[in-house]
Amino acid sequence: MPITTIGLDADDTLWHNETIFRLTHDRFADLLSEHHDRDRIEDRLAATEQRNLRLYGYGVKGFTLSMIETAMELTDGEPPPRVISEILAAGREMLSHPVETLPGVAETLNRLSEQYRLVLITKGDLMDQERKLAASGLGELFSGVEIVSEKTAETYDRAFRRHGTGAQQAAMVGNSMKSDVLPALQAGAWAAHIPYAVTWAHELADAPDNEPRFAALEAIAEVPPWIDLRMAR
Amino acid sequence: MPITTIGLDADDTLWHNETIFRLTHDRFADLLSEHHDRDRIEDRLAATEQRNLRLYGYGVKGFTLSMIETAMELTDGEPPPRVISEILAAGREMLSHPVETLPGVAETLNRLSEQYRLVLITKGDLMDQERKLAASGLGELFSGVEIVSEKTAETYDRAFRRHGTGAQQAAMVGNSMKSDVLPALQAGAWAAHIPYAVTWAHELADAPDNEPRFAALEAIAEVPPWIDLRMAR
Repeated sequence: MPITTIGLDADDTLWHNETIFRLTHDRFADLLSEHHDRDRIEDRLAATEQRNLRLYGYGVKGFTLSMIETAMELTDGEPPPRVISEILAAGREMLSHPVETLPGVAETLNRLSEQYRLVLITKGDLMDQERKLAASGLGELFSGVEIVSEKTAETYDRAFRRHGTGAQQAAMVGNSMKSDVLPALQAGAWAAHIPYAVTWAHELADAPDNEPRFAALEAIAEVPPWIDLRMAR
Repeated sequence: MPITTIGLDADDTLWHNETIFRLTHDRFADLLSEHHDRDRIEDRLAATEQRNLRLYGYGVKGFTLSMIETAMELTDGEPPPRVISEILAAGREMLSHPVETLPGVAETLNRLSEQYRLVLITKGDLMDQERKLAASGLGELFSGVEIVSEKTAETYDRAFRRHGTGAQQAAMVGNSMKSDVLPALQAGAWAAHIPYAVTWAHELADAPDNEPRFAALEAIAEVPPWIDLRMAR
């Protein structure tokens, strides 16, 4: 069956994101470095984030709340005066950070959009993801945008039925093996993994074995030839 | 043209919400009552919320961050030890608060769903709204769910095209004149306003004048006869 629709993850696939989270992690560790060593601060923040995912979901607002909660825990409820304000400021800066697209993204999406329906499928805060898409200048290239609370096989099944001709005729492209590749394959779609420089521990997973619909690519510019090859067979 | 699709707002239309925000506002004022009088605390919190909407959007996570920011402002950056932790706890409680549907909602939606496509159209945090819909037991009655960052005429145009047969053949039902009624009318839909006991100041607006597609109702049970009357003409 021909591929009609291409799904694209946003953060760390189209534009930088995890590097901004990493910088904020560093800034957070600096704030508390008089109280604890950096590894302990990082471990506690990661544990708080993971614990709160169920309640807060993905995105900067929940991350900011998790930083505040961790700061309270690590200072026995009495953080130095400027710590909480600095964390709030760091969260606000993340939410207004300029959007920097990854190399080759604009050219590749322009080319793909001439032949395929493009669908953006991303987790995160609604308003923040909409802001980043608008700021990226890529918005017009997408025929559908799905901002979701979690990426499961059902998410991809629904998104590709809604915006395309079903998962069997769709390919998903993203940097997370766990969220972009495995559930999309499970839904019946093709899937390409393009790793980003850094991966949030929560998104790590093994590559699928013996899966002809899976491709490990190195850059988004490799997506059109990969799709062309699939279509030619 | 016949009505085929009914859009429903969620918070304060299907289930209690603003009362929970009000209770949290009271709890917040209690926390800081040694520092300032309640009116001043309330004014500052409302101003912070309003200022942050652009960045945080709607929902509990942004509201929690606004409470923390306001507490920092009102205590010159040095809140008493338990204040920040209490605010975080209040936010978490809002996010796990039991969902209490309003009187007549389940019966009315069951009845409407036999004849019309129902679409939930709501603002707020993605994961929180999904949680509340699941907890309400009403999820199966909806053929579409749209959790959006803002409710404009374009939002309704898109939602009723996607999940129905266009805004001209749709009716929107909600408690906010500003978010549910006016933009839905502007998109070409019918719209019914059902006020909730309390309305967030941000959502206040005047009723439309001389608008035959608008109805002021008192309870959700009045929706089916209102629609029937429209269809009979």
